[in-house]
Amino acid sequence: MFKTIFENVRSKNPLIHNITNYVTVNDCANIVIACGAAPIMADDKNEVAEITSICNGLNINIGTLNSRTIESMLLAGKKANELNHPVVLDPVGAGASQLRTDTAMQLLQEVKFTVIRGNISEIKTLASGSGTTKGVDADVADKVTEENLNEMIAFAKAFAEKTGAVIAITGAIDIVADSTKAYCIRNGHPMMSAITGTGCQLSAMTAAFVTANPDYPLEAAATAVSAMGYAGEVAHTRLTEMDGNSTYRNYIIDAIYNMTPEMLEKGAKYEVR
Amino acid sequence: MFKTIFENVRSKNPLIHNITNYVTVNDCANIVIACGAAPIMADDKNEVAEITSICNGLNINIGTLNSRTIESMLLAGKKANELNHPVVLDPVGAGASQLRTDTAMQLLQEVKFTVIRGNISEIKTLASGSGTTKGVDADVADKVTEENLNEMIAFAKAFAEKTGAVIAITGAIDIVADSTKAYCIRNGHPMMSAITGTGCQLSAMTAAFVTANPDYPLEAAATAVSAMGYAGEVAHTRLTEMDGNSTYRNYIIDAIYNMTPEMLEKGAKYEVR
Amino acid sequence: MFKTIFENVRSKNPLIHNITNYVTVNDCANIVIACGAAPIMADDKNEVAEITSICNGLNINIGTLNSRTIESMLLAGKKANELNHPVVLDPVGAGASQLRTDTAMQLLQEVKFTVIRGNISEIKTLASGSGTTKGVDADVADKVTEENLNEMIAFAKAFAEKTGAVIAITGAIDIVADSTKAYCIRNGHPMMSAITGTGCQLSAMTAAFVTANPDYPLEAAATAVSAMGYAGEVAHTRLTEMDGNSTYRNYIIDAIYNMTPEMLEKGAKYEVR
Repeated sequence: MFKTIFENVRSKNPLIHNITNYVTVNDCANIVIACGAAPIMADDKNEVAEITSICNGLNINIGTLNSRTIESMLLAGKKANELNHPVVLDPVGAGASQLRTDTAMQLLQEVKFTVIRGNISEIKTLASGSGTTKGVDADVADKVTEENLNEMIAFAKAFAEKTGAVIAITGAIDIVADSTKAYCIRNGHPMMSAITGTGCQLSAMTAAFVTANPDYPLEAAATAVSAMGYAGEVAHTRLTEMDGNSTYRNYIIDAIYNMTPEMLEKGAKYEVR
Repeated sequence: MFKTIFENVRSKNPLIHNITNYVTVNDCANIVIACGAAPIMADDKNEVAEITSICNGLNINIGTLNSRTIESMLLAGKKANELNHPVVLDPVGAGASQLRTDTAMQLLQEVKFTVIRGNISEIKTLASGSGTTKGVDADVADKVTEENLNEMIAFAKAFAEKTGAVIAITGAIDIVADSTKAYCIRNGHPMMSAITGTGCQLSAMTAAFVTANPDYPLEAAATAVSAMGYAGEVAHTRLTEMDGNSTYRNYIIDAIYNMTPEMLEKGAKYEVR
Repeated sequence: MFKTIFENVRSKNPLIHNITNYVTVNDCANIVIACGAAPIMADDKNEVAEITSICNGLNINIGTLNSRTIESMLLAGKKANELNHPVVLDPVGAGASQLRTDTAMQLLQEVKFTVIRGNISEIKTLASGSGTTKGVDADVADKVTEENLNEMIAFAKAFAEKTGAVIAITGAIDIVADSTKAYCIRNGHPMMSAITGTGCQLSAMTAAFVTANPDYPLEAAATAVSAMGYAGEVAHTRLTEMDGNSTYRNYIIDAIYNMTPEMLEKGAKYEVR
């Protein structure tokens, strides 16, 4: 199924509106192109509803948010809901400041999301309404492990049930769940956490995948998560002794660019629970 | 002539003020350095006029515009006109939202531009005052082809006549025209469209080229367009099987860095009509 | 000593709050990770004090400043002072506009900095309260040379005395001084000036180094400066004929990622005066 889902992205070439942070925005744009979609970035309140209208899907990322862009996120999210466009939320740093937690909670209340993708600390913050995220990285205490995996899957399914969104919790083991079914994905490489914005890139790409596969949000999100992890594996095989996180960043985007649906089908490592 | 024009950029090292979007700004800065000029990015209304004054040329790019930066674009543009500095407009996404179309039209009315560079959909939007740009990419229906080339050249010349600016329409075939003369440039590689911001980079570089060659805006813009396309060709020859759009992005900037005026003179593919 | 200082960064993994420009922010984040620390970027007045509180150190960079972010810089700087967190100032373009000079002077008055890092024109502007910085690069007339080195060291020590901050003046020869002692560092490569943001990256990394070594701000800043220069040397040895400033940018971050404290100890070139 991952193969068909990825083929749909490449053949439909969906246009994705991104309201995202200025740290990783360039990588987000390039990876959206690499996977077969097209990005547009726009965050002014006087154009976001209109830009969302000409697009096929929306990605809202709250990193480097401010009062001006928060208003735009709400406007674009509501317009996308009106138009029945898929919407992805990346609650970057929810739990790290009251502003980020409050903004994420307000977005959850006023916008219906198709997928919510974050690290475990961010998702726990959204589920409980408060949190202790360590900056923009997951807290070690929260980590998904083989030991707590069943518990974490149950948590993801329950939060999916509550929000009506597919929940994608990414880390060493990724969980992508709706209220009844969860994909546990074991693609990826530890070095991916040495690059800023692999999560942001994945959220942008997830928006492309769910937009091209509107009837299969769970499978589309799982495919995007698996593709990102597999790209991390492929890219890592290219690294020479002197390469570091900057070259790795480029190679991951390159790997998405060169990945065929067949390659992904073979490379994907997951189980359904 | 392209050789002399490029030599002037490298020898004069013009300082270029860029008010540009946060998506591709880093690549714009690096390519401006790569071609032999120096960039400064500043977008606050309380400093843009002063920053423009210490610079030699100005590049205004409306991607990710907002009410704060629109005001700054107008202030900087007017100051540059006062000082007789070359000014380039990149109307990113004009036609994709009313805000972008209106802003581009207001800039055209209040600022005299030396060069306007965009894709065909953006330029058509400016010429007609409204448009249907598909996001930030050109609409397929608008595409410049060998079949409609004469018509498009006439369109470019007429719009150059109307605005007093050199018009650079870039795509598979590039047209760079003033009211009486047009360069049709056939450098470039289709994969360039798989990178975000090659257009933005070209606009920033065009500002450097026209600033270093104030008496030859048409030839300077044509040289910049040709150099960007030729860099795309050179960079493409370096790509291995596993390289994708991210590595290609780096190699294009590298190719500008290593391009000599002699190489460009030989590599440029154009005709004058 | 450089070895121990670098080891502390890698073992303590400090979290660094960056309020920085949108031109080079991605490279700043990636180099902070590369050196062993963790970055968070946040610039809204409603969260900066809180974000600073969960971090261990703060980096304030005034490139692409605006009225909104200036307020945030002051709030974050004061909160960091309250908490006794190290704070680095990068006065990008001070002297190039009144707004930048005034903002830098106001920051100096209201915030106590641990390190101030800039090029010689920027630092001279801060010391005198006015200046003639050529854009964001140092003015040639200001350049630190073997001939004026003693004078420049005296200047740096005097300004360190006045501000209570370690002063890091970077260029072909780097000077890192407190009121009584100066490191003259001769690492680096001239091609580093062909990349946008090597200075910004160094400031972000300096924040990580002083945060992990709170009792040795002078040595920590000198180590960061030396590491950046040495990375420029190592990265340069990798360049092939077709590589330019964009690949070089990636390789410098890669070199920091792969640099061990032992390698730095051997590669550092400095004298104490």
